[in-house]
Amino acid sequence: MDYRFSRNVERLQSSAVRDILKLTQGKEMISFAGGLPAEELFPLEAIREAADRVFTTGNGSLQYGLTEGYLPLREQICKRMLQKGMNIQPEQMIITTGSQQAIDLIARVLLEPGDVVLVENPTYLASLQVFNLSGLRVIPVASDKDGMIMEDLQRLMKQHQPRLVYVVPTFGNPTGRVWSLERRLGLLEICHQHGVAILEDDPYGDIKFDATAIYPTLYSLEGNSEGGCVLYTSTFSKTVAPALRTGWAMGNQKVIQMMAKAKQAADLHSSSLDQQTLSHLLEHFALDAHIRTIADAYGERMQHMQALLCQQNLRDVTWVEPKGGMFLWVELPEGLDAEALLRCAVTKNVAFVPGAAFYAEEPQRNTARLNFTYTQGERMALGIKGFAEALNEFLARC
Amino acid sequence: MDYRFSRNVERLQSSAVRDILKLTQGKEMISFAGGLPAEELFPLEAIREAADRVFTTGNGSLQYGLTEGYLPLREQICKRMLQKGMNIQPEQMIITTGSQQAIDLIARVLLEPGDVVLVENPTYLASLQVFNLSGLRVIPVASDKDGMIMEDLQRLMKQHQPRLVYVVPTFGNPTGRVWSLERRLGLLEICHQHGVAILEDDPYGDIKFDATAIYPTLYSLEGNSEGGCVLYTSTFSKTVAPALRTGWAMGNQKVIQMMAKAKQAADLHSSSLDQQTLSHLLEHFALDAHIRTIADAYGERMQHMQALLCQQNLRDVTWVEPKGGMFLWVELPEGLDAEALLRCAVTKNVAFVPGAAFYAEEPQRNTARLNFTYTQGERMALGIKGFAEALNEFLARC
Repeated sequence: MDYRFSRNVERLQSSAVRDILKLTQGKEMISFAGGLPAEELFPLEAIREAADRVFTTGNGSLQYGLTEGYLPLREQICKRMLQKGMNIQPEQMIITTGSQQAIDLIARVLLEPGDVVLVENPTYLASLQVFNLSGLRVIPVASDKDGMIMEDLQRLMKQHQPRLVYVVPTFGNPTGRVWSLERRLGLLEICHQHGVAILEDDPYGDIKFDATAIYPTLYSLEGNSEGGCVLYTSTFSKTVAPALRTGWAMGNQKVIQMMAKAKQAADLHSSSLDQQTLSHLLEHFALDAHIRTIADAYGERMQHMQALLCQQNLRDVTWVEPKGGMFLWVELPEGLDAEALLRCAVTKNVAFVPGAAFYAEEPQRNTARLNFTYTQGERMALGIKGFAEALNEFLARC
Repeated sequence: MDYRFSRNVERLQSSAVRDILKLTQGKEMISFAGGLPAEELFPLEAIREAADRVFTTGNGSLQYGLTEGYLPLREQICKRMLQKGMNIQPEQMIITTGSQQAIDLIARVLLEPGDVVLVENPTYLASLQVFNLSGLRVIPVASDKDGMIMEDLQRLMKQHQPRLVYVVPTFGNPTGRVWSLERRLGLLEICHQHGVAILEDDPYGDIKFDATAIYPTLYSLEGNSEGGCVLYTSTFSKTVAPALRTGWAMGNQKVIQMMAKAKQAADLHSSSLDQQTLSHLLEHFALDAHIRTIADAYGERMQHMQALLCQQNLRDVTWVEPKGGMFLWVELPEGLDAEALLRCAVTKNVAFVPGAAFYAEEPQRNTARLNFTYTQGERMALGIKGFAEALNEFLARC
């Protein structure tokens, strides 16, 4: 039978990351491509113990759960949020299958096909996909190292009457960028003025290289315990482990209730085993100390990658040193198409993500996202060497 | 801030089951309402061992996984499907967060808002919700104890040009109905003739009270190893445990690929811990023997509930004895509104689901769904007594 597919799914590009992962399957590839956390740092034994504690509570632990998520876990996350200056109640929170699902649910409950979402430029690839899946119009706001440029935001607000602004203000993906306080406040002011919701996606905020640095979330800056215009989402995928697929969204209670209605139809609820395991983990494991270990390790790896790139003396290759997160965002010589470079790099068993995929409209093709968390030491050195060789060969050919 | 919500989520009714569960929270309620499997039969120790085996495989088990799902699990499910006469490859299968998510993904990839889906009358409540969430038009096909009535199906096919027919042919929810072979073949023929896809939802097929009975799936009857017009979905929620939230969809490979694209945007992938746990469970645990144990126990509980209802000598209360599944579908005296009856039953600490929620259009209000798997023995007897008291009082008042 001949299947026809919905317009929304037809216009979904298969993710570049995904295509590359397929390309590299079965090969001894050094990959800077995926957004994979460091496996060797996963707290395996602590998770194992936590999972075992779940089973100790008996058969009820394996029954259907609440769509909103396991209540003790929501209470624990609320406590953690309070430490970051975010005062919320469990009723203002829903557990999702990774923060990715939170974005999808928010798009489904707040927006109609054709509605406009404003995003940073460039922005998180999978947010573009999820907005496309809901048939939304995604419009990029001119952005620099401090975040969205307020003048352009203001202009696009008036021009497009968007329903949502999607941002990753702390260690953005792909740029690693941190929004300045001024821009954060500016975004809040403009969104209040226009009555537009903000989706603050914060999967990386905990992965800060300077332990003493404070980057206040938009949610905490808005300071509305009832939930104002900011809907906040985060995840344990980077701080505990991705396999547990546990994220959350929080904010205005009515929005959370609507998300629960949508989630009930979409998948009833997320894995209860994962949620209960995380709840026991939070009770018995020093997660904050663990996060510090991860962040320190990632900081070292980022420094190592920077040093390796510098050693290669690559002409016209620049980047801004990230203060956290998992990615180095590299500008390559002008005119170079990073997708063509990738094909060359793959022959040297090195993979990365060409930057074009992260742009909602006209891409800057001479950009690349390098993940510095999954590889380390000699292997990272070998990978950067291969990357540099590919680049030099590629430039020589042009 | 004043949030506006999408039309699709606004028109989602909060599920009656859900509202009732809320109503009964914190009370010593005997609930025939939820579709909850028997907790005491969950193979807790086997799942515990299986989960522990996952951790033994090392840190890689906690990394991001494939959107399509854990490959060894897909291979194992394929083997199980072959035993039921369904010959498919892992590439034709995607793991989902319960089969609920499979329905959502199929709706999102195959249909546009406004497209028509034909369903049984009555049909699975949460399928109505998920179709509403995608903005579809849901039209019921006249149905009797043998399934959809072919003349009405043929008529509605011509009148509405639907894009999908959704059916639960074996032990439907809420009716417990089994489609006759003739109707199964008729549905296939009519759908082939019109080029319309069938979504065969089969969460209960394994829960058959007669171990020797064979109810061939539509997928096996179509017998197209490439996947024809039938998309099949099932789940481990009823046969292992709901907390693991693991279902699957299978069929035409292109449809599965599109579902993977949509799922990548929707939640990246389902819990890997759950999937790997199930994979180890399937390897080391006699699941088929366990399913036989469950089905036998459920058969006994169904008989018990029937006997209890008969003892009450309720006038004009009728049902068809189900051959499997988890529900008794009861017709109450004509003119009685089961939602009003529920309010009365709740005062006697008994809950059930009024049938109206299961109808896409005009409901038959004098119907009720009673779950016979979650309660048993004395507790079930007490519950049916309360139900009968409520019914008698209610009728005396009218």
